[in-house]
Amino acid sequence: MKNSLGREIPEEIIKSRKLYEKPFSMDEEITKTTPKVKPVIPGESKLLESIEEAIVKSGLKDGMTISFHHHFREGDYILNMVVDTIAKLGIKDIKLASSSLAGIHKPLIEHIKNGVITSITTSGLRGALAEEISNGLMKEPVIIRSHGGRARAVEAGEIKVDVAFLGAPSCDEYGNASGTGGNANCGSLGYAKVDAQYADKVIIITDCLVDFPNMPASIPQTNVDYVVKIDKIGDPAGIASGATRYTKNPKELLIAEYASKVIIESGYFKDGFSFQTGTGGSSLAVSRFIREEMIKRDIKASFALGGITKPMVEMHEEGLIKNIFDVQGFDLSAVASIGKNPMHHEIDASFYANPHNKGCIANKLDVVVLSALEIDTNFNVNVMTGSDGVLRGASGGHCDTAACAKLTVIVSPLIRGRIPCVVDSVNTVITPGESIDVLVTEIGIAINPRRTDLIENFKNLSVPVYTIEELKEKAYKIVGTPDKIQYENQVIAVVEYRDGSIIDVVRKVK
Amino acid sequence: MKNSLGREIPEEIIKSRKLYEKPFSMDEEITKTTPKVKPVIPGESKLLESIEEAIVKSGLKDGMTISFHHHFREGDYILNMVVDTIAKLGIKDIKLASSSLAGIHKPLIEHIKNGVITSITTSGLRGALAEEISNGLMKEPVIIRSHGGRARAVEAGEIKVDVAFLGAPSCDEYGNASGTGGNANCGSLGYAKVDAQYADKVIIITDCLVDFPNMPASIPQTNVDYVVKIDKIGDPAGIASGATRYTKNPKELLIAEYASKVIIESGYFKDGFSFQTGTGGSSLAVSRFIREEMIKRDIKASFALGGITKPMVEMHEEGLIKNIFDVQGFDLSAVASIGKNPMHHEIDASFYANPHNKGCIANKLDVVVLSALEIDTNFNVNVMTGSDGVLRGASGGHCDTAACAKLTVIVSPLIRGRIPCVVDSVNTVITPGESIDVLVTEIGIAINPRRTDLIENFKNLSVPVYTIEELKEKAYKIVGTPDKIQYENQVIAVVEYRDGSIIDVVRKVK
Repeated sequence: MKNSLGREIPEEIIKSRKLYEKPFSMDEEITKTTPKVKPVIPGESKLLESIEEAIVKSGLKDGMTISFHHHFREGDYILNMVVDTIAKLGIKDIKLASSSLAGIHKPLIEHIKNGVITSITTSGLRGALAEEISNGLMKEPVIIRSHGGRARAVEAGEIKVDVAFLGAPSCDEYGNASGTGGNANCGSLGYAKVDAQYADKVIIITDCLVDFPNMPASIPQTNVDYVVKIDKIGDPAGIASGATRYTKNPKELLIAEYASKVIIESGYFKDGFSFQTGTGGSSLAVSRFIREEMIKRDIKASFALGGITKPMVEMHEEGLIKNIFDVQGFDLSAVASIGKNPMHHEIDASFYANPHNKGCIANKLDVVVLSALEIDTNFNVNVMTGSDGVLRGASGGHCDTAACAKLTVIVSPLIRGRIPCVVDSVNTVITPGESIDVLVTEIGIAINPRRTDLIENFKNLSVPVYTIEELKEKAYKIVGTPDKIQYENQVIAVVEYRDGSIIDVVRKVK
Repeated sequence: MKNSLGREIPEEIIKSRKLYEKPFSMDEEITKTTPKVKPVIPGESKLLESIEEAIVKSGLKDGMTISFHHHFREGDYILNMVVDTIAKLGIKDIKLASSSLAGIHKPLIEHIKNGVITSITTSGLRGALAEEISNGLMKEPVIIRSHGGRARAVEAGEIKVDVAFLGAPSCDEYGNASGTGGNANCGSLGYAKVDAQYADKVIIITDCLVDFPNMPASIPQTNVDYVVKIDKIGDPAGIASGATRYTKNPKELLIAEYASKVIIESGYFKDGFSFQTGTGGSSLAVSRFIREEMIKRDIKASFALGGITKPMVEMHEEGLIKNIFDVQGFDLSAVASIGKNPMHHEIDASFYANPHNKGCIANKLDVVVLSALEIDTNFNVNVMTGSDGVLRGASGGHCDTAACAKLTVIVSPLIRGRIPCVVDSVNTVITPGESIDVLVTEIGIAINPRRTDLIENFKNLSVPVYTIEELKEKAYKIVGTPDKIQYENQVIAVVEYRDGSIIDVVRKVK
């Protein structure tokens, strides 16, 4: 069967799920799931000796679902330690629901081969694990979810977490956990907060046990069953980079300049506006251009959202951004700021972008700048699979913010190496074209024809304007029409849209 | 049938409920309830014109349950306005689940008579409404719940709130609500926070609509369906008193001095200890005596808890108390402090004292000082019914903190007017004697014989020590043995212990 984007979804994958239709077509009343709670009475201790003891006490059994957060990124020690211990205990058929997975989680390959892990849901997949999965490692397809979509799935009980293993840079013996105050600080614990609320058993793993009460806490004691102190939860160098560096790449700078002009002339750039920019080179540079214009026109932003980086923190501290909503900190500036700036707010992934709560903050976004691996002539965006069809990206908050923001700008070079980025049809749709308003490349922009209002606003824009077909033609002219990727029939990943419908599948590469 | 305290509970009241047994006998795994959620999509407005429109949009129907918080105390305009409007709309048989009720809610009498309100659960009942209920106004008995017990009941779905009407001193158009930043500030919205999380429909009513985003928010937009702006939500004078005044009553001061000595010699008074004191004259004065001793011995408290008052705020600001956990602010000092002191934390009623989460903060209390209307020779405490048997008090956090704290001190005069406060058997048990450690009166103290360790610690205490029977005898000698109150058979109130078991009933007065 085909969904509304014409993507072929095999019957055996659909089962009881719906096919993607439109960004907001699934808005029926839902009932949230609910955790089981074992009351803790005065005097009871939550402190355990080891991860092994925590797994045993949690009652983890074959077939259960475990969850992790990815705030430690490439510096994460927790996931591998826990899964190793689960394997040692002889527990099998575990469903892994990590908010994302990175290169450091390569050891999962062996655990999948040995039947310890039989199912995975994640936002991102990179490195050797991704490669193996793309080559058919798992019987059950991975489910790729966006950050908002994962929060939705957890709240709806579609991901029913039996045991959450949540690393925390600091924690007290009663479970009050924080993303700062320790050795391996990550700032916001936005993804972990959701799991802590909905998992039956919540285990905090820390390498920095502090005096009770560890306040303010990202995860409160009332959600925590056990606390384990270990030697090292992660490698600070892999968790947060020292500082985000501005790009010096002239192509990226040109894209950023064009994107800024688009934003400034869009009609949304006015006092009290809100925005999110990603972490790519162009995306980051956009902040710099916008900052100058904000100062010139005496414009202050109401809030900045998303994965937080140094440019946003600087603009906040100089009064240009009133509030920062932080689901994830990307560098040490963000980590430092959340610990000291009272208007730098830690938010959970549901508050960030869950489409099925009573109004996530993404709903209030004016402008978002997002990158792309590929974008096609229907404006559909791929941020998940490479030009070889292999998984090497992350869904992240891409489709969430694109759907919600009043202006969604994709920044992308026309070609990368010898690969066109504007194509006839993307390998994998993460974000549907109807959510995208403008594509910005180094040679000019393309406006989604659905946005006739923007076409009007951009009449005097000093940036070349093309149709997206023209941009594609230019790309193909330079590097030639790309060969079709050869896939086998086996589906190795299902891409869920944020509302839980199936927007695409990824097949095994030949 | 009789419960473990020998209280006679009629069969028709028990139904599927359990009888009170012991403070922590009900600690089985529970499953939390879960709200229905109607997703809010970008561009949708939550702002409504009137309370009437909000009631209609909420889908409120005959037989449903509505909830309110009592942070506006005697200054609350919200509850009466909403129930008046419900009556005007012809809706009947409504179950009222307010976190407490006060004298200002007298108009409920008419709504009960007219069948608009047919069931009530509350922590407190005072004034004309309480009088009428004691005289048999309602067919269905009121359920009296403690603050922790109410949070438990909401989370367990025993109170299933269909529509929560929550007054907020400030709010933005998307539902981010705060207890400060407006005209009628109340500080913490600790009771409202629980309702906002578990009610199917949540309506914020404010008289101060502020710019989006209203941060930090006590209640986040993700929990709010509608926002209504009205002229006045309450009378600031009735919400928070200007400043808490120290008592000059010599009897209260003597009790406070004795209580302080008890605390200081108890073994719990050491660096890092935690405490809660109530708002009564003696209770408040205890803080002053303790403060002096803390300075003398260079002792700092880890945290102060509960309803927050000026003495606690002052001690926090001078560094004697590291953290304040605030479920409810009692005066303007508390209101001001929560808005500016980062270690003055707003907590919800579940975090405060719910016995069935994974460890409330009350579990970590060292010392609590509580008052009493009556205490009996089994140390059972009544804070709910007067010497005439009429409802005129509040369960509050009494049984919650008494059960959890390592040292529970009751401060009470031996007699009030011509009424003995130490008696053979209290009219109504709110807190079971096994939770009480020491009774302090103006003539001396009585130690619960179960606390042999304390008897040892208090060997050199410069306060007269009696048995509780001796204290009772002294009271009876002065004012005579009190006459038994004449009750009819009809049960007008059921007193739930914090765990949901029935600890007592209140009967109709003759």
